[in-house]
Amino acid sequence: MDALVTGAYGRCGTAIIDHLDDSDDYDWTYLNRSDRPDDHPYGGYDTLLADVTDYDALRRAFDGQDGVVHLAADPKVDAPWDSILENNIIGGYNALEAAREAEVETFVFASTNHVMGMYETEHAPDIYHPDTEVMVDHTDPVRPDSYYGSSKSFGEDLGRYYVENYEYPKQFYSLRICSVRWPEYDHPYGDAERGVENDTFERGSDEYERRVARMKAMWHSRRDFAHEVACCLDDDSVEFGVFYGVSANDRRWFDIDHAREEIGYDPQDNGDEWDAPPS
Amino acid sequence: MDALVTGAYGRCGTAIIDHLDDSDDYDWTYLNRSDRPDDHPYGGYDTLLADVTDYDALRRAFDGQDGVVHLAADPKVDAPWDSILENNIIGGYNALEAAREAEVETFVFASTNHVMGMYETEHAPDIYHPDTEVMVDHTDPVRPDSYYGSSKSFGEDLGRYYVENYEYPKQFYSLRICSVRWPEYDHPYGDAERGVENDTFERGSDEYERRVARMKAMWHSRRDFAHEVACCLDDDSVEFGVFYGVSANDRRWFDIDHAREEIGYDPQDNGDEWDAPPS
Repeated sequence: MDALVTGAYGRCGTAIIDHLDDSDDYDWTYLNRSDRPDDHPYGGYDTLLADVTDYDALRRAFDGQDGVVHLAADPKVDAPWDSILENNIIGGYNALEAAREAEVETFVFASTNHVMGMYETEHAPDIYHPDTEVMVDHTDPVRPDSYYGSSKSFGEDLGRYYVENYEYPKQFYSLRICSVRWPEYDHPYGDAERGVENDTFERGSDEYERRVARMKAMWHSRRDFAHEVACCLDDDSVEFGVFYGVSANDRRWFDIDHAREEIGYDPQDNGDEWDAPPS
Repeated sequence: MDALVTGAYGRCGTAIIDHLDDSDDYDWTYLNRSDRPDDHPYGGYDTLLADVTDYDALRRAFDGQDGVVHLAADPKVDAPWDSILENNIIGGYNALEAAREAEVETFVFASTNHVMGMYETEHAPDIYHPDTEVMVDHTDPVRPDSYYGSSKSFGEDLGRYYVENYEYPKQFYSLRICSVRWPEYDHPYGDAERGVENDTFERGSDEYERRVARMKAMWHSRRDFAHEVACCLDDDSVEFGVFYGVSANDRRWFDIDHAREEIGYDPQDNGDEWDAPPS
């Protein structure tokens, strides 16, 4: 299938490139608002340059696609309203409207754990304990912790409106992604996927331990994320679905059974298997 | 208490004026984007003139208020995206941010049945039958039927973010209002509260009967609406709540038990008691 990734060179988009670019199942188009130089780890790919706030540029990129993975947005949980409004709310509308006009069948939307962030705020750090009784699923009420989280909740609701009211897109998958991380070459200490940025906090300090516990709970490994995107693109049964984007972490507090059952998500990684990062 | 109504001269705002203006419990301020002439039914009230898209004008009106009833928005279910974005999404953010800055305790938000409109689209007209098995409550997933409905769902989520994250507002009530109607003097046939606009459809026609059935299911009488707003303003127990704005209609398909239990909503009217409008 022909599939477009918006925001292709961010943390999540590059995980798709790393794990699915050479798949025979997808003919990828990568869209980003800026290009990468040839000597950059992701500099070797053809790139459609477009900003999601520019409807006409976005619309052209959607032509001929069977699926779209819409990642482009302001990803900062503390981003100010003006940027969230432009990039996430208007950008989200633009992407859905372009999918409708271009008759794209499948829409995979990068939502976020921050749609449900107040459950974490309320229960942290106990929520990171393997024995926590908190387990949030797709039927629980949304409790955003930010403009960012609120904008992603809006994107989900607007996606449901589109898929239930218009002919296209026919399928809408919202992934409430937790923590997808950069691979090692962007971080100073070993494999950033399996460590915390331990130059920021003293090892053994309370804050360090808290961050390690959080990452073990929230980790979505790059290969598990790419696999979950593929599950969405390959599925032909779901009209609208909300799924959590998290690995099979012992400490996770988000349900993944719904994703296992509906789209065949089969994560390989578990944050509790992390080693301590090298000191 | 000092309370501000935005969009005071619309269908819902004027119901508050009709039923609560002379109450000793509230010192009202009416905000509207346009004034009414003295010979208009609602021309005799002092008016703060402001558009909800103008943050600074809105912010000043929030000073000194204990409660805000935020009704101002584009109320058309088929309104285009650009107007919904400006008036409902940006306007909703402006109202919440003004409430936060002005330290307004209580925020009553005019949401809409159209947040759940796809349940109706899916089941109409059987859903209007008194014996329908469809009963939608505040825990059911949102299924907007429009940009309008999507924008109101966003307002609810943003309200939850504000009330759970900031000091003000301390209480947020979302009323998913069904059909509040103009009183008789704006309509050609008798009491518009208890009839349909029977100049549009031939009496006895299928479309006429369908509209009558729908109005009997969806009616929120002006006095019941004003009473439910007062329930929200008077309540001191709810931090965040979603309640349906509908009278005790035999044909309603929205739950009102939650509103009865949480805020003491006690509706007096039932759409099935309507007489046929005069021909």
